[in-house]
Amino acid sequence: MNVELINPFIAATVNVLKTMARTDPKHGTPSIKQGSKTWGDVTGLIGMAGDGVCGSLIISFDEPCILKIVSNMLMEDFKEINNDVLDAVGEITNMISGGTKSALSEKGYNFNMATPMMITGKNISLSQLSKTPVITVPFTTEAGQFVVEAHISKA
Amino acid sequence: MNVELINPFIAATVNVLKTMARTDPKHGTPSIKQGSKTWGDVTGLIGMAGDGVCGSLIISFDEPCILKIVSNMLMEDFKEINNDVLDAVGEITNMISGGTKSALSEKGYNFNMATPMMITGKNISLSQLSKTPVITVPFTTEAGQFVVEAHISKA
Repeated sequence: MNVELINPFIAATVNVLKTMARTDPKHGTPSIKQGSKTWGDVTGLIGMAGDGVCGSLIISFDEPCILKIVSNMLMEDFKEINNDVLDAVGEITNMISGGTKSALSEKGYNFNMATPMMITGKNISLSQLSKTPVITVPFTTEAGQFVVEAHISKA
Repeated sequence: MNVELINPFIAATVNVLKTMARTDPKHGTPSIKQGSKTWGDVTGLIGMAGDGVCGSLIISFDEPCILKIVSNMLMEDFKEINNDVLDAVGEITNMISGGTKSALSEKGYNFNMATPMMITGKNISLSQLSKTPVITVPFTTEAGQFVVEAHISKA
């Protein structure tokens, strides 16, 4: 995938977390995803699909990071990854994907979003059937870290 | 989700495995998916998305079942779940989803398909952010078993 396509994902991630969770994440350098393991303790994933367009967004948080984000979002103190936290991960994934729509549409990638899914567990083998590489971007927050992995391509 | 919507998924599953892998799976009774764990040793998942339509298809195989199916598909004897087997799981997931398109379109559900993903491991926590329930259907083949879990809804 064209590396410039990652920028809308970075911008949407920052915007969603600032707006919804009073969190200001700093991103590191994008690179091509190696291997096929989930990075964090909890991972949200969503498929994006349009006419001749397909892709995915994966966001994977370490536990302290997501507990702080969801505590800020829901104004309640979460101490462990429970169903409310998982649902919030799905919502965040959905909002970030949605936040990229207009910028990617301007580049000719029009899509709708599939049902968000959430995986619990580090180092889960999660691979994708795609000819174009997945770009991964590390993020740091005050409470912990997460990564965003995105891929979008035209048929 | 309306239970009759599961029938295109059952028909496409049987058709894809008959055509591609000389396998004639028999299905059991559909039910509402309980819990949020992957059923089998390897699981394919794909998002489906259209204007106001979103859904997912998950297919989860026990190891003997998928090894036999992929051995038949690729005309080579597979003894373990390797990257070729994972890619074949992604292809099967994609083909089954694609095989439901015209039947679901007739019922007003128009969608495109996102990038297929593959998870390795039994009892992985995999949940979905969806208000409508996921329908699960068990299948039996001569070599082993698998389940299909599907969900599609309109906004």
